[in-house]
Amino acid sequence: MTDFRQQALDYHEYPTPGKISVELTTPAETSKDLALAYSPGVAEPVREIAQDPDNAYRYTAKGNMVAVISNGTAILGLGNLGPLASKPVMEGKALLFKRFAGLDSIDIEVSHRTTQDFINTVANIADTFGGINLEDIKAPECFEIEQALIERCNVPVFHDDQHGTAIVTAAGMLNALEIQGKKLADSRIVCLGAGAAAIACMELLIKCGAQREHIYMLDSKGVIHTRRDDLNEYKQLFANNTDKRTLKDVIDGADIFVGVSGPDLLSPEELKLMAPNPVIFACSNPDPEIKPEVAMAARDDLIMGTGRSDYPNQVNNVLCFPFMFRGALDVRATAINDEMKVAAVEAIRQLAKEEVPESVLKGAGEKSLTFGRDYIIPKPIDPRLCQRVARAVAEAAVKSGVAKIDMPDNYMMD
Amino acid sequence: MTDFRQQALDYHEYPTPGKISVELTTPAETSKDLALAYSPGVAEPVREIAQDPDNAYRYTAKGNMVAVISNGTAILGLGNLGPLASKPVMEGKALLFKRFAGLDSIDIEVSHRTTQDFINTVANIADTFGGINLEDIKAPECFEIEQALIERCNVPVFHDDQHGTAIVTAAGMLNALEIQGKKLADSRIVCLGAGAAAIACMELLIKCGAQREHIYMLDSKGVIHTRRDDLNEYKQLFANNTDKRTLKDVIDGADIFVGVSGPDLLSPEELKLMAPNPVIFACSNPDPEIKPEVAMAARDDLIMGTGRSDYPNQVNNVLCFPFMFRGALDVRATAINDEMKVAAVEAIRQLAKEEVPESVLKGAGEKSLTFGRDYIIPKPIDPRLCQRVARAVAEAAVKSGVAKIDMPDNYMMD
Repeated sequence: MTDFRQQALDYHEYPTPGKISVELTTPAETSKDLALAYSPGVAEPVREIAQDPDNAYRYTAKGNMVAVISNGTAILGLGNLGPLASKPVMEGKALLFKRFAGLDSIDIEVSHRTTQDFINTVANIADTFGGINLEDIKAPECFEIEQALIERCNVPVFHDDQHGTAIVTAAGMLNALEIQGKKLADSRIVCLGAGAAAIACMELLIKCGAQREHIYMLDSKGVIHTRRDDLNEYKQLFANNTDKRTLKDVIDGADIFVGVSGPDLLSPEELKLMAPNPVIFACSNPDPEIKPEVAMAARDDLIMGTGRSDYPNQVNNVLCFPFMFRGALDVRATAINDEMKVAAVEAIRQLAKEEVPESVLKGAGEKSLTFGRDYIIPKPIDPRLCQRVARAVAEAAVKSGVAKIDMPDNYMMD
Repeated sequence: MTDFRQQALDYHEYPTPGKISVELTTPAETSKDLALAYSPGVAEPVREIAQDPDNAYRYTAKGNMVAVISNGTAILGLGNLGPLASKPVMEGKALLFKRFAGLDSIDIEVSHRTTQDFINTVANIADTFGGINLEDIKAPECFEIEQALIERCNVPVFHDDQHGTAIVTAAGMLNALEIQGKKLADSRIVCLGAGAAAIACMELLIKCGAQREHIYMLDSKGVIHTRRDDLNEYKQLFANNTDKRTLKDVIDGADIFVGVSGPDLLSPEELKLMAPNPVIFACSNPDPEIKPEVAMAARDDLIMGTGRSDYPNQVNNVLCFPFMFRGALDVRATAINDEMKVAAVEAIRQLAKEEVPESVLKGAGEKSLTFGRDYIIPKPIDPRLCQRVARAVAEAAVKSGVAKIDMPDNYMMD
């Protein structure tokens, strides 16, 4: 473990501090080059953009540039460590945007006094970018922040901790239920955790067919029910009219468990109370709500996903966010709406049902991957993800009327 | 001209829109790479920075990253066209930072309602970067903005339109005066223009020895004098207790003319009124206050500089700003103070007196360049600029107590 710690620090320190750099895409050697890049040549694109703001997509890097923005109030599972401490995570996200979707991405860490101050700062710089990925912002402020920025910005705003997690969870869940022979509409769901990811996951499952009254959400005080008077407006939407109070009460007979809480909070005894053929997504990272080996020892009729890459069925946001923005930016979507999110769910879901190419097996270190109990979600390194998800998202953006341009011909086709 | 216009637009549109991209500096191919770059490995540098903010310089790109920030209120000579239209200029500046000083640089365009709103936005995102280069912000707001940001930010803040121009002007002016056998302290100075660059130029010349009462500054209403009641606080500092009212009144017998105003505002007749062996810096771009060929035809005892690369003695900010930040960032200066500015003036000035290497002559398309009437300022492509200016600035930062670390051994030595 110490060794991994040192490796991680060395990775960030060398060959140069950090993980990203800014490079030139145009020649800048001769005086002629510089006369085009800067004064006097640069006046020409300035005039074009002054006449029509959309020309910024033609003459500047805006259309391929995503800002990864945080205030550092909920960094990974480490808590509120402030904006500067979040920088390695945000640079890491920028790295993933480039690696997986070819998007240029830069991190911005925001100091702020109030939520409104944060919103205002991000809105003021938003036009610089083609899209804004919010990251590691704590609940419940993250809901207000995202909503306000969606209203104020002309470019897509997406809080990945909410929606990236929700989209990959929903894709995996629908596949798992299909294998277990269950329907989302009939399933009883227990959601342990009531933060940003939990609420977004449940909202998206409802959009995919789940019944709100079949959902039991628990926060640190137990089941969220209609007689509690300590609920914020986001938790209130999940207040269940029930007498059940504990995890043990609600897990009894449940079909689905989604954990976005903390390590080892689901016991083998509780797991055994679930209905036959249950689905368990224990997403707490790095230590899940129940370890897969413990769960499998307790019963063998379950399908299980975690947040970890060393177990099957990793629920990993990187399956979604790079391609969400790739698709949105390529049709200049002004927002990321529910249609686009559901399209991403379907695209991820379908890909898991296709044959896996040799190169992906090799990269993932697997002998075979076939749709089933241990393979309900594609692998992050699958290069088809970008094609499929970006295309589905772009298509949904065009159909739902938020795209400013049409899909390019043969967009993301082989 | 149309041809150049199209070339400039093509340069910005191809091969990809804009002039910069974000690239990875660390490996990101294997699952192992990604486990170090992002979760779980990224938690290690996060913890280190949470314990000591200075670790951000060790584990993130912050220490080599300069933000080029504008609100688009004074874009080149084109005026207030708004933040988005300024984007090609700011990307161009980012390109110059990389090309000349190896600094990573990203543009940020800021929408704002009030000056305070702009200040607050920039201050809130400042910790993301190692330094902040303000650009194309109109006077007089630019003075208040820079001052407020210097006070609020922990990283150096530098409004290049003011100080970059001033530093290169002062370097060239001191060399020109040396050749003309004059001293700044004894020179009568006419400054045509009273905007950001004009005021900064005159303030820096005063720091280099000029007498404030020997300066006549003119705005669009004529000479700035003590009986005018329409002066903002920045112009007031240059209100001269004089009966002279027009350019013709003050140019009579003057030793120095600095123009940062508009094309063809200095006539040959006015030029003839100046003292023997005058220095004329006609920096309006692209069309100077008086064309060099017109000036030379009027009298042959002058030394002349312009903002253009196609005449001798180009007063070009790129001689300064990349290296100002290079030096400041390399010793983690918390500010850019007067000592650092004066050190840059001296370094630029001295370099013009050295022999010019063959490679620079070739790159500049010159047969020879020898310190004298037609070569008082180094050429932008001179690779020694980075060494000399960055080193001088870093040294001055250390000596004046604003550096957080010492100069590296043999810093910027051959």
